[in-house]
Amino acid sequence: MGHPSDDGARPLPRRRLNRQRTRERVYVTALSLFSRQGYAGTSVAQIAEHAGIGRGTFFNYFPRKDCLVSAWSQERVRKLNHRLAPHLEGPAGSVAALRACMSALGDLNEEEPELSAAMLTAWVQCGHLFEPRPHHLDALFACIIERGRARGEIRGTASPEQLGALLRDLYFGAVHRWATRCTEPEPAAGGGPCRPHLHTELQLALSMLLRGLTSA
Amino acid sequence: MGHPSDDGARPLPRRRLNRQRTRERVYVTALSLFSRQGYAGTSVAQIAEHAGIGRGTFFNYFPRKDCLVSAWSQERVRKLNHRLAPHLEGPAGSVAALRACMSALGDLNEEEPELSAAMLTAWVQCGHLFEPRPHHLDALFACIIERGRARGEIRGTASPEQLGALLRDLYFGAVHRWATRCTEPEPAAGGGPCRPHLHTELQLALSMLLRGLTSA
Repeated sequence: MGHPSDDGARPLPRRRLNRQRTRERVYVTALSLFSRQGYAGTSVAQIAEHAGIGRGTFFNYFPRKDCLVSAWSQERVRKLNHRLAPHLEGPAGSVAALRACMSALGDLNEEEPELSAAMLTAWVQCGHLFEPRPHHLDALFACIIERGRARGEIRGTASPEQLGALLRDLYFGAVHRWATRCTEPEPAAGGGPCRPHLHTELQLALSMLLRGLTSA
Repeated sequence: MGHPSDDGARPLPRRRLNRQRTRERVYVTALSLFSRQGYAGTSVAQIAEHAGIGRGTFFNYFPRKDCLVSAWSQERVRKLNHRLAPHLEGPAGSVAALRACMSALGDLNEEEPELSAAMLTAWVQCGHLFEPRPHHLDALFACIIERGRARGEIRGTASPEQLGALLRDLYFGAVHRWATRCTEPEPAAGGGPCRPHLHTELQLALSMLLRGLTSA
């Protein structure tokens, strides 16, 4: 379906490439605005204006504003999986894998604190907290737990899915508290003061769950 | 400041009583509507109409729609404290107190599943998940943990506040999953199928945290 003036050899790839570039520009522009002024405080019209496209054109790339949140969320999953791959495939035990997982989650948030806090708030505002299907983190944690149980490292009778959900609850709680702290003081000096806390809190939560509060 | 036609003896108490009754009627009406059609799906005009008052009068009782969520939340705290008092003041240990706390939280939600699910969603939609001040449950759990540590029942170096927050994270995660299950099938037969799950899930989460996943 090439344009009549095209030579017919590669009209689609070029069009696709342009489309992909525009989509990327809209996405990056939106994240930058969300990071500075929050998701709720940013309109589609504003994103379109800053990206140099018409408001109507925006919807060709993202049918709804919250599709930007889903796109960010998917990108996060890709980054997490990429960073975790060496820890999940190697011979290291399940405890080390859980520690690596919490560590990677801490890093991903702390590398861009304002954006992470804004997108996490947006994610909740868009109702994703009440989605019926399990979060991908549940499955990731459950997979590590399952291997750990097979190796005799994880005890108890709760299912890997139940324990995966618990680990996700601990992560969500910690990251929500951290996001609140990040957005509380005006975004002045790059969110510096929040940086050490999430990492520490995640490892502490994991340690508590691994060792237990009452075991000798 | 009695009305000119009043006898001057007790105009204020009567007026206060009427005011209190109207406020209660608005509150009960609103909860009933939220329970049936959700918080976001219920307008102030609708609440006012069902309560038999004008839309403008509504705001004399609740300055904003989300004040109904705060009122419900405060009522929940009162009920929880009332039910827990015997367990917190007696000689029983901290583990029993934590179990009683999770049990009371499970009961409070499961006694009115549709309303609880609707109000929990509303509470999140109103942005309370990102409030900077700690949730009252953090303090309640922290208080039990502190006593447990003084009695040598709770080990480890994490502060009671940190452990209180962890316990709240486990509760929030479980109750959010439960609320999602409650609202997922159309509210047909009184939410019956959700009933047993929250209680079980809360006790399981608590057991996991108490005993630990890796301790022998």
